[in-house]
Amino acid sequence: MDVGFIGLGTMGRAMAGRLLAAGHAVRVWNRSAPAGDDLASRGARRVATPSDAFRGDAVISMLADDDAVREVILGHGVLDGAPKGLVHVNMATISIALAQELAERHGARGLAYVAAPVFGRPELAATGKLNIVAAGDPDAIVRVQPLFDAMGQRTWRLGARPERANVVKLAGNFMLGAAVEAMSEAAAMARRHGVAPADLLDVLTNGVFSAPAYKTYGALIAAERYDPPGFRLALVLKDIRLALAAADMADAPMPLAGVIHDSLLDAVANGDANRDLAALAKVSLRRAGLDGVTQKSAA
Amino acid sequence: MDVGFIGLGTMGRAMAGRLLAAGHAVRVWNRSAPAGDDLASRGARRVATPSDAFRGDAVISMLADDDAVREVILGHGVLDGAPKGLVHVNMATISIALAQELAERHGARGLAYVAAPVFGRPELAATGKLNIVAAGDPDAIVRVQPLFDAMGQRTWRLGARPERANVVKLAGNFMLGAAVEAMSEAAAMARRHGVAPADLLDVLTNGVFSAPAYKTYGALIAAERYDPPGFRLALVLKDIRLALAAADMADAPMPLAGVIHDSLLDAVANGDANRDLAALAKVSLRRAGLDGVTQKSAA
Amino acid sequence: MDVGFIGLGTMGRAMAGRLLAAGHAVRVWNRSAPAGDDLASRGARRVATPSDAFRGDAVISMLADDDAVREVILGHGVLDGAPKGLVHVNMATISIALAQELAERHGARGLAYVAAPVFGRPELAATGKLNIVAAGDPDAIVRVQPLFDAMGQRTWRLGARPERANVVKLAGNFMLGAAVEAMSEAAAMARRHGVAPADLLDVLTNGVFSAPAYKTYGALIAAERYDPPGFRLALVLKDIRLALAAADMADAPMPLAGVIHDSLLDAVANGDANRDLAALAKVSLRRAGLDGVTQKSAA
Amino acid sequence: MDVGFIGLGTMGRAMAGRLLAAGHAVRVWNRSAPAGDDLASRGARRVATPSDAFRGDAVISMLADDDAVREVILGHGVLDGAPKGLVHVNMATISIALAQELAERHGARGLAYVAAPVFGRPELAATGKLNIVAAGDPDAIVRVQPLFDAMGQRTWRLGARPERANVVKLAGNFMLGAAVEAMSEAAAMARRHGVAPADLLDVLTNGVFSAPAYKTYGALIAAERYDPPGFRLALVLKDIRLALAAADMADAPMPLAGVIHDSLLDAVANGDANRDLAALAKVSLRRAGLDGVTQKSAA
Repeated sequence: MDVGFIGLGTMGRAMAGRLLAAGHAVRVWNRSAPAGDDLASRGARRVATPSDAFRGDAVISMLADDDAVREVILGHGVLDGAPKGLVHVNMATISIALAQELAERHGARGLAYVAAPVFGRPELAATGKLNIVAAGDPDAIVRVQPLFDAMGQRTWRLGARPERANVVKLAGNFMLGAAVEAMSEAAAMARRHGVAPADLLDVLTNGVFSAPAYKTYGALIAAERYDPPGFRLALVLKDIRLALAAADMADAPMPLAGVIHDSLLDAVANGDANRDLAALAKVSLRRAGLDGVTQKSAA
Repeated sequence: MDVGFIGLGTMGRAMAGRLLAAGHAVRVWNRSAPAGDDLASRGARRVATPSDAFRGDAVISMLADDDAVREVILGHGVLDGAPKGLVHVNMATISIALAQELAERHGARGLAYVAAPVFGRPELAATGKLNIVAAGDPDAIVRVQPLFDAMGQRTWRLGARPERANVVKLAGNFMLGAAVEAMSEAAAMARRHGVAPADLLDVLTNGVFSAPAYKTYGALIAAERYDPPGFRLALVLKDIRLALAAADMADAPMPLAGVIHDSLLDAVANGDANRDLAALAKVSLRRAGLDGVTQKSAA
Repeated sequence: MDVGFIGLGTMGRAMAGRLLAAGHAVRVWNRSAPAGDDLASRGARRVATPSDAFRGDAVISMLADDDAVREVILGHGVLDGAPKGLVHVNMATISIALAQELAERHGARGLAYVAAPVFGRPELAATGKLNIVAAGDPDAIVRVQPLFDAMGQRTWRLGARPERANVVKLAGNFMLGAAVEAMSEAAAMARRHGVAPADLLDVLTNGVFSAPAYKTYGALIAAERYDPPGFRLALVLKDIRLALAAADMADAPMPLAGVIHDSLLDAVANGDANRDLAALAKVSLRRAGLDGVTQKSAA
Repeated sequence: MDVGFIGLGTMGRAMAGRLLAAGHAVRVWNRSAPAGDDLASRGARRVATPSDAFRGDAVISMLADDDAVREVILGHGVLDGAPKGLVHVNMATISIALAQELAERHGARGLAYVAAPVFGRPELAATGKLNIVAAGDPDAIVRVQPLFDAMGQRTWRLGARPERANVVKLAGNFMLGAAVEAMSEAAAMARRHGVAPADLLDVLTNGVFSAPAYKTYGALIAAERYDPPGFRLALVLKDIRLALAAADMADAPMPLAGVIHDSLLDAVANGDANRDLAALAKVSLRRAGLDGVTQKSAA
C-alpha cells in the first residue's frame, strides 16, 4: 500500500519500520526532520509537509499528545487538502473529546477516520507484536488491516465510533497505573514489616498476578531500577489525566484513578518525571519514611 | 505423617482431603461437628476436642478469622497440653498482630509455629494446586513439607519469622482487591461511553492483564454474574481490614487500600456482602448512575 | 465612575445594582438581552455589544465560566478596540491558566487586568456584603476601589499578579467543598449509629465549627433540604475541577479535592446537578445504604 | 458533691481543678502518682486505688485511650466493688465498641454509666469553658450536671444510649482533621503558585471560615509553627482510627477520613508524631516537593 506516516518518535519509528519491512511504500514526516534518517535509508520517502503525507491509500499518525495533533493535523488545513476517501489511522493515545472532534471533522470532508491506539512497549513495536485496538468505519478498517497486520500481533475491532477505541486504551493504561500503584504500596508496607519487595513480588507475580504488566514493573520495583525509562512516568501521568477527563465527561467517578494521579504528581513534584513508571514505588516508600533506604532480600 | 486438622470449611475440607489422598493419617476437628462426615468416610478420624488434634507430628489449622483462632487455639489452653516439638501450621489468613502473638506463645511452650497462608480458590485446593507461602522455623518447615506437597503446587519460603508469610498473603489479597476495583471503575466509565464491559475486558484480560485474577473476575464483571460467590465479598473486606491494620501498625500509608475498603463497605451497606467479590462492579455502576441497567456487547 | 458591566446572572445583576445605588453610571451588556430590564429601569444603560461595555473608566465582567469568557471577551476582538488605560475587572471564578492568558493579552494592548473574584451568595451581593479578593496592577486596583466599596464589605489585596486572586478563590471553594463533604460523611456515619444529623450538627456547628460555611450547609443537611439551590452543586463541581487543574499545573497533589470531585460527580450522575451543594449528603447516605430513608432528631 | 477523679493528664488536672474551685470534694487517683501533687495542695484527697475513687456520688474518668480504660476500669474488678447507684462519667475519647461494652457492664452491676466527652483544649478546660457532650441515663445526667457546670460552658444532651455522645465526639474530631487537611492542601497548592499560605489563610479564616478550628490551625500552618504541640498529631491519628472503626462497624464509608488517616500516618512515618496537628501541612508540602523550603508573605 501507499501510506503516509506522521510522527517518528520511538514508537512511530518502530512501527513505520515494520511497514517498510512488509513491503509497503511509506512517505514519512516528522516535526524534527532528523528522525527520519534511518527510515529513509531503508526505503522510506521523506516528505516536506504533513499534507504530503495525507495522500495515497492511507495515512497513519503517531503524535505525542492532543496538542501535537491539534497543531499538526488541525492547525494548517491538512484535512482540507486531503483526497476524498483517504483513511486516516490515528494510533496515538489522545482524549475522548479530541477523538470525537476528529471523527466529525474528517467525516465532514469525506475522509475516513480510524482510531487505533496500541498496547505495547517499543521492543514489541519493533517486532510487530503490538496489540491494536481499532474503531471506526468498518470498511475503512478492512482496507487498512494489512497495515495493522504488519505492526501488530492482533487487532481488536471495537465498533464504528472511533472514540470507543480510545476509551479502551485509556481504561487499559488506568489499569496499568493501578497495578503499579498497588505493587508500590504493597512493597512499602512489606518493607516496614521487614519483607523485601523482591521476595514479596517474586511470590505474587509468579502466581495470581503472572501477567506481563506485573512481571515487568514488579521486577523493576524489586530492583529499585527506575532508569532508563521504558514507559516514562510523565507520559503515564498524561494518560491518567486523559482517563480522568474521560470519567469526568461521562459522570463516572473513578476514585482509584484519583489516587494514582496524586501519586504520579507527587513523583513529578519530587523530580522523577523522566524516570520509569516504576518510580511510583519511591512515592510509597517516601510516605512510609523509607525513601533512600535500600533493603536486600532476606528470604 | 500423623497430622491433626482443625477447621473444616470449604477450603479446610478440600485440603484435608488432599492429605488423606496422599496417605497421611488425619485427625479432624470442627466447631460444627457434621462438617467432618465426608472426610470420616474417606478415612479421617474425628476427634472430640482441639487438644486431640494437637498431637502427633503436626497439626494444621484453617479457621475463619482472628476471633475463631483466639477462641479455639488460645481460649481453652490447647497449647498448654500439646507435646513439646509439635509443629502447628496455621494456613488461615489472620492479622500480623495475631501471627506475632501466636509465634511468641508457641515458642514459650516449646512448640513450633509455622504460618502458611495459601492462594487459590476451593477448586484449586481440591486438586492440590494451591500456592503456599510459608514462614517460621526452617527445620519445622522441612518437616511439614510433605504435607504442603500434598496440598499445593508450590511452596514459597519466606524466612524464619512467621508473620512474614501473613504480610505476603495480605499484600496479595490487597492487590487482588485493587485489580477488581480497577476493572470495576474502568467498566463503569466505559459503559457511560457506550462501550460494553465485555468488549473492554475481552481486550484487556487477553493482553497485558492475562493473569488468572483478571480473567476470573473480568469474566464475572462482564457477565454481571455475582452469584454464587467464589470469593465472598465480605471475606475480602475482612482481608482488606487486615491489610489496613498491617499498614497502620507499620506506619505505611496505603491510599489504594482505603479506596477499596470504602467500595467494599459500600457494597455491604447496599446488600451485597454475600455476593462474589465481582459485585464490587455494582458500586462503580451505582456511582455512575447505572446500577440496575444492563448492557449488551455492541462491538 | 463610568463603568461597563458584562454578565447579568444572579450575581452580576445584584452587583450592578449596587453600583447604580452608589451613583455610578453603568452600561450593561448580557448575552441574553432580557436580563438587563430591571437594571435599565433603575438607570443602567443597555449597550449592544461587549465592545460598548469596554469603554469609560472601567469594565467589570461576571461571566459564567472559562468558555463564556473566551467567547465574549476573546472571541470578537473586544480587547483590540478598547481604549488604552481601561481597567478590566474580572470578578468571575475562572481557571488559573485563563487568568494568566488574560493578564498577558491585556498587557500587550495597554489595558489593565484586575482579577477580583468574590466570596458570598446572591443575598450578600444584593446588600453589598461580598468579600472581594483582588490582584493585579496596584494603581488599577486603587482606581476601581470605589466600585469594590459599593459591592463588598471588604477587599483583600493579593499582589500584582492577577491569577493570585484566582488561586485564593479556588482554594476557598475547595475548602468549602471539603467542609460540606466532611459534614455529609459524618452525618451518614452518625445516622447508622442512630444519631440524627440534626443533633450531631447542632452540637458541632455551634461549637468549634461556628463559621458561616458550616452553619449554612449544616442546617440544610440536617433538614435534608436541597431545593431550591443556593449554590448549585454543578457549579461547585466546576470550581473543584478548576482547583484540581490548578493543583495539576503546579505539581501539588490534593487528594481531598479528588474525593470531593468524585462525590460531586456521583451526585450529578444520580440526578442532583441542579440541587444545592448540600445534596452531597445524599451521596454519603447512598453509600451507607440510607438514601431515601429519613430520620428525626431523637435527642 | 463527693466525687472521685481518675486520670490526671493535662486535661484531667485542669478539669479536677475546676471541680475543687467549685467547692466539690474530690478524691483523685492517677497511674503515675506525682501528677496529683498540685491538686492535693488545693484540697484534693489522693487515694490509693481506682476502687477508692469509685465511691461517693459520682466518679469521673479521663484516661488516655481504650487500653488505659480496659486496664484501670475493667482490669481489676473496680466495677464489682462499686456501690449500687454510683454514676460513672467517662469524659475521655474512646471507641464506640468500648462505650457499648462499658454501658452494658455498668448496667449489669447496677451502676449508671454516662459518656461525656469534651471539646476544647487545655486552656479552655482550665477556665471551665469546655463544650460537654453527654449521653446516658437522663436521671444520672441530671445528678452530675453540677459537675458539668463547673467544667464546661455548655452541656449538650444526646439521649439515653451513652455511645451516642462518643459518635458525636468522633465525628467532631474527624471534621477537625478534614479542616486541617484541607488548609494544608490548599496552602501547598497556593505556594506552588507563588501565594504565601499566610496570605491565603488570612483571607479565608477571616471570611467564610471564621471558626475557632480554622483560626487556630490556620495561624499555625501560616507560621509553619508545629511546636510545642497544642493537640498532638499522634492523638488525632488515634481519634481518626476510632472514627474509621465507627464507620466500619456501621457500614458507612468515609473516604475523607481515609485520606486524613493516610496523611497523618505519613506524618508519623516521617517523624512528626509529637508535633502539633498543624504539622499535617508538612505532608502536603512534601508531596508538592516543598518540604523544608520556607516562604514569606508577598502580598
